[in-house]
Amino acid sequence: MPNRPLTIFCNAGLDDVSMELLRSETIGHQLVTDQPDCSTADIAFGQPDPQQILAADGLKWVHITSAGYTRYDTDAVRTALRELDIIFTNSSHVYDAPCAQHVLSMMLADARQLLPCYESQRSDRAWESGPRRAASYLLNGQTVVLLGLGAIGQYLIQLLQPFEMRIIAVRRNVQAQDGIEIVSEAELGRVLPLADHVVNVLPEGPSTVGFMNAERFAQMKPGAKFYNVGRGKTVDQDALLQVLYTGQVGAAYLDVTEPEPLPPAHELWTAPNCFITPHSAGGHHGERLRLVQHFLRNLRAFKADEPLIDRV
Amino acid sequence: MPNRPLTIFCNAGLDDVSMELLRSETIGHQLVTDQPDCSTADIAFGQPDPQQILAADGLKWVHITSAGYTRYDTDAVRTALRELDIIFTNSSHVYDAPCAQHVLSMMLADARQLLPCYESQRSDRAWESGPRRAASYLLNGQTVVLLGLGAIGQYLIQLLQPFEMRIIAVRRNVQAQDGIEIVSEAELGRVLPLADHVVNVLPEGPSTVGFMNAERFAQMKPGAKFYNVGRGKTVDQDALLQVLYTGQVGAAYLDVTEPEPLPPAHELWTAPNCFITPHSAGGHHGERLRLVQHFLRNLRAFKADEPLIDRV
Repeated sequence: MPNRPLTIFCNAGLDDVSMELLRSETIGHQLVTDQPDCSTADIAFGQPDPQQILAADGLKWVHITSAGYTRYDTDAVRTALRELDIIFTNSSHVYDAPCAQHVLSMMLADARQLLPCYESQRSDRAWESGPRRAASYLLNGQTVVLLGLGAIGQYLIQLLQPFEMRIIAVRRNVQAQDGIEIVSEAELGRVLPLADHVVNVLPEGPSTVGFMNAERFAQMKPGAKFYNVGRGKTVDQDALLQVLYTGQVGAAYLDVTEPEPLPPAHELWTAPNCFITPHSAGGHHGERLRLVQHFLRNLRAFKADEPLIDRV
Repeated sequence: MPNRPLTIFCNAGLDDVSMELLRSETIGHQLVTDQPDCSTADIAFGQPDPQQILAADGLKWVHITSAGYTRYDTDAVRTALRELDIIFTNSSHVYDAPCAQHVLSMMLADARQLLPCYESQRSDRAWESGPRRAASYLLNGQTVVLLGLGAIGQYLIQLLQPFEMRIIAVRRNVQAQDGIEIVSEAELGRVLPLADHVVNVLPEGPSTVGFMNAERFAQMKPGAKFYNVGRGKTVDQDALLQVLYTGQVGAAYLDVTEPEPLPPAHELWTAPNCFITPHSAGGHHGERLRLVQHFLRNLRAFKADEPLIDRV
C-alpha cells in the first residue's frame, strides 16, 4: 500500500466512544465522516452506496458494517470490484459470537421449556412442574443440521462441543472438518430426516431464496425444531405456517422474517410454537466498538499488505 | 458382596419402560416393588422412608432417585448409616446435565433478551430491534461466581468453556482445578463484587439456609444477575425482593423457591425481572429411564465390590 496518508470514508453510524477510538487509531490519515460520497476515498468503512462503488476513482478497499451484503451482491458491483481491483470485506466476525449465542439460547429455551414457563408466570402461575419436566429434554445425543457454514456456523459448532451432539453441516464446498460431517446440498434429503434441530444460517442470494420450502419441511423428522438467523427470504413462510399448524415442525424460532418489521397482524406471530425475535441475533452491547475494532484490525493488515479477514 | 440373590426394594415411581429395564437387568434377584418397607431388603432404590433406614436389618445400600437428600441429612440417619455400615448414594449424575443446561438456558435467555422479545410477541409486536440489540450482550469476558461445586457445577463449567468467561467457584474444600478459580466462603466478599452472574447450586442444610442474604446481595455488582437451581431455602427471599425492586440485582432466574409450589399471589411472581421455572431444571424426557440406568451402573459396581458413584 502507498506510504502516504489514506482517505478513509466512514458512514458507519458510530457512537461517541467508538468514533473516538476510530479517530485516535487513524491519526495521520484523513478520516471523512461528513461527506456522502465514498467514490474518491481510498477506503470506505460503513454502508457505502453501491452506486458510488461503480463510480469509484482510486477506491482500494470497502469494509461494510454488516455480515449480510445482499445489496452489494450484484453483477454490476462484482464487476466493478474485480475490474477496479477493490478489496471487499464484511463484519462477519463481529456477529459470529452473538448470532451463535442467540441460536443456542433458542435451542436451550426450547429444551428447557423457558417460554411455556414464562407464559405460566404471566397467567395462572399453576406451577406445572410435572408437564414442564416431562417436556424438557437433553440436547445430548441429538442431531443438528446446519444450513450454511460461515462464521456463525463455525462459532456455533464450538459452543455445541460440550453437548455431545451429532453435527451435520450442509454447504457448497464440502471440506473435511474435525468433529462434524459436512455434506453437499445434494444430500439434504438424506440428512434432514436425521435432524432434531435444523438451523438456517443461509445468506440471501439467488440460490437460497425459498431454500426451506414445503418439500424440505416435509423431509424433516416430525416434530423437529427449526431456527432461522440467516435471512427471511430463504424460507417459504407459507410452507412454514402450514407445517407449524400440522405439527410436522415442532417449533420455529425466527430472528429474521420477510418482511421486516413483521407486521403485527402477520400470521407467524400467532402460529403454534412460533417464536420471533426482531432481527436482534447479531446485536450486543458494545457492537459499534467491536465493529471499529474489527475494521482497525483489518486496517493494520491492509497497511502491511497482509491478508484481510472476512474477505467476501 | 454375598454371591446370593439380593432383595432390591424399589419405590422409585417408575413408568413401564423403565420398570421393564429394571426387571430385565435384575433377573436372578428379588425385586420388591409392592411393599412399603425397605428395612429388610439388601438394597433400597427410590425414596425410602428415613425411619425405615433407622430400623434397617441387613440393608447394605440406599440409592435415592434425587440429587437433594435433605430428609436423610439428619444426625439419626447419618449415625444409622455409619453404625449399620450402609452405603448411601444419590442420583446427582442423572441431574447434572439437565440442571446445567437449565442454568445456561437462563443465562443465554438473559443475554439474548428472549423473554422481553416473547413479551412483545404476546402484546404489541412492535419489532423493537434497536432496544433489544442494545440490551443484548456477549457472555465472553464476563465473570460467573458459582455458589457450590458439585456435579451440576462441574457440568456447567464444561458447558461454559467455549464462552471465554472467568469462572470462580465458592466451595468448602478448596482444591485446585484447571480453568477455574476455587475460593473458600471466607473470600465471598471479595469475589461477589466481580460477578456478572451469580449461580446458586447450594443444597439445603444447616450451613446454607439463608446463605444469600441482604448483606451478600449488597456485595454483588449492581445489576448483576442471580440464578438459583439449588434449593429455595438457601435464599432470603425478602432480601431478594428488595434488591430486585432497587435494581441492585438486575434479574433473578429461580427454579426453586420457598415454598413450592410458589403460591400464585406470592410477590416473587411479579417482582421486576424475576423469572421463575417450576422446579423443572432437573427434569428431562427419559428421566426415569436414566435413573434406572444410573442405579444399574452402581448395582454392577456394588456386586463387583467396586466403588459406587455419587456416594454422599
